[in-house]
Amino acid sequence: MSAPAPTPAPTSAGKTILASNIAKKYIDEVSATVKTLNETPLLVGFLANDDPAAQMYATWTGKTAESLGFKYELRKVDKEDLEEAIIEANTDDEVNGIMVYFPVFGDRQDQYLQQVVSLEKDVEGLNHQYIQNMYHNVRFLDSEETQKSILPCTPLAIVKILEYLGVYNTLLAHGNRLYGKQVVVVNRSEIVGRPLAALLANDGATVYSVDITGIQKFTRGEGLKLHRHKVEDVSLTLEEVTKNADVIVTGVPSAAYKFPTEFVKDGAVCVNFSSEKNFDISVKEKCSLYVPMVGKVTIAMLLRNLLRLSEQKKQKK
Amino acid sequence: MSAPAPTPAPTSAGKTILASNIAKKYIDEVSATVKTLNETPLLVGFLANDDPAAQMYATWTGKTAESLGFKYELRKVDKEDLEEAIIEANTDDEVNGIMVYFPVFGDRQDQYLQQVVSLEKDVEGLNHQYIQNMYHNVRFLDSEETQKSILPCTPLAIVKILEYLGVYNTLLAHGNRLYGKQVVVVNRSEIVGRPLAALLANDGATVYSVDITGIQKFTRGEGLKLHRHKVEDVSLTLEEVTKNADVIVTGVPSAAYKFPTEFVKDGAVCVNFSSEKNFDISVKEKCSLYVPMVGKVTIAMLLRNLLRLSEQKKQKK
Repeated sequence: MSAPAPTPAPTSAGKTILASNIAKKYIDEVSATVKTLNETPLLVGFLANDDPAAQMYATWTGKTAESLGFKYELRKVDKEDLEEAIIEANTDDEVNGIMVYFPVFGDRQDQYLQQVVSLEKDVEGLNHQYIQNMYHNVRFLDSEETQKSILPCTPLAIVKILEYLGVYNTLLAHGNRLYGKQVVVVNRSEIVGRPLAALLANDGATVYSVDITGIQKFTRGEGLKLHRHKVEDVSLTLEEVTKNADVIVTGVPSAAYKFPTEFVKDGAVCVNFSSEKNFDISVKEKCSLYVPMVGKVTIAMLLRNLLRLSEQKKQKK
Repeated sequence: MSAPAPTPAPTSAGKTILASNIAKKYIDEVSATVKTLNETPLLVGFLANDDPAAQMYATWTGKTAESLGFKYELRKVDKEDLEEAIIEANTDDEVNGIMVYFPVFGDRQDQYLQQVVSLEKDVEGLNHQYIQNMYHNVRFLDSEETQKSILPCTPLAIVKILEYLGVYNTLLAHGNRLYGKQVVVVNRSEIVGRPLAALLANDGATVYSVDITGIQKFTRGEGLKLHRHKVEDVSLTLEEVTKNADVIVTGVPSAAYKFPTEFVKDGAVCVNFSSEKNFDISVKEKCSLYVPMVGKVTIAMLLRNLLRLSEQKKQKK
């Protein structure tokens, strides 16, 4: 009796998922809605540096915005005139959304400038009030719940990516769809890493937030009063928090940094939001799904925010 | 004929002026006003670190506040509970002023926390709206001009010190009393150095703002529309901007840093706001007046702000 022919072994390589595929659904939604509007929303981007990465991002947001039917204007200004230019756009009724291509000064003055953008036009969702609302799970700006609070673009994009990848379990209730999931986020910036850890913890995940100062654990916690996640310092190593991680998200702005492939659990989901490749290509031998870049989803979220702000402005009138 | 007896040569040493002497006038004003109030304002200080310098500053503000007739409460909290604790104090009608002893996390999360303190209780004047108003010479929060905008404590303290030292010329009109003066400020932080440079430029001085990234020149400029000073990058050396400087203000948080005495113009006024001694003792052979520390004036300004916020709260009721 001869043995049955062996079924071919499945390929060990994880699958790469491109941000463009994930963004498509949102891009389609946004462009369909723009077509129904009487007035075309105008997005103004401010560029006040010579950083080629910022230049490229500016060109790219412009192209995407216009291809979806928005109006886009890139305003190049001297860094010393930027504040005045933002204030002018804040008060200009023709302008629906404002974004600034950072870095400008590369220090805390950039955070100051970010807060100069008015709440009503902040498509990036970086105004202090938006961030504070996000941390506290507050969804509206007003008690009548007519003005939605905007979420910061990149953390929101990563949530949408994890939804697409099936990490969010849609059989579970909203707000609990990451229950039981363990996530490692390598980056704790105020723009992406910390908000992201909070968003994922608020959805039920246990999140280990890693940066050079150490590792913190974010969980939903007991903060019912403030609807706030709980944060603790933990004395665990990257290897210890990674070995059981279902999801690893990296955002280290350094070409030299590589997340150690040997720490990645078989079948983990890996997402990189840094403009540098934080995973070595060998990660595909371990992970199930790998998203090497997120930029196109971020821009889709930005334009979604622009649409929302334009609609809220009309409602207010 | 015998020669007349020579008049004794004046001593070459500059005079040291203590912050306590400068603060006295403001301390007296504040404590006299507190006595006339029906309710004693309560200042709450939040300490969420083990930094001995912050601990000492906390004790010291407490003692000064109480000696002037205010109520003071030091609340020690875990850094992860700080945000919740600030929000609680924001909504507590008994609390008139809130201050946080930084650093807490030592990164941008500290700036986030700073903005959580409500505008109405921010005795340090560090809310974005206060800082933006200061840069634009906007003196009130409301168009009826009933609610004064608060100025950040340390820059305000240094202005008051320069007034005391006679650098402000009272024969000139308000807003022009530094006309013709050249000032060097070694520090361009968002908390002290940059606001200070702007305040002095708005009063007519030419200010060279120095930090490790280079030197910028602040002047009153033409920004009439926004009542805003003008800033330019300049390619001058520290020696070049210092040799004609009437005033040198230092704030470098490093024990190793010493401002080069040989650059100091004979008769210059030297003020150090760092907790480290940024001037070598030899500076007294060059300068006319020397203020080695400013902390006591800063606290006087803090309590002055507390008084103002308490009064404005009463007016609003």
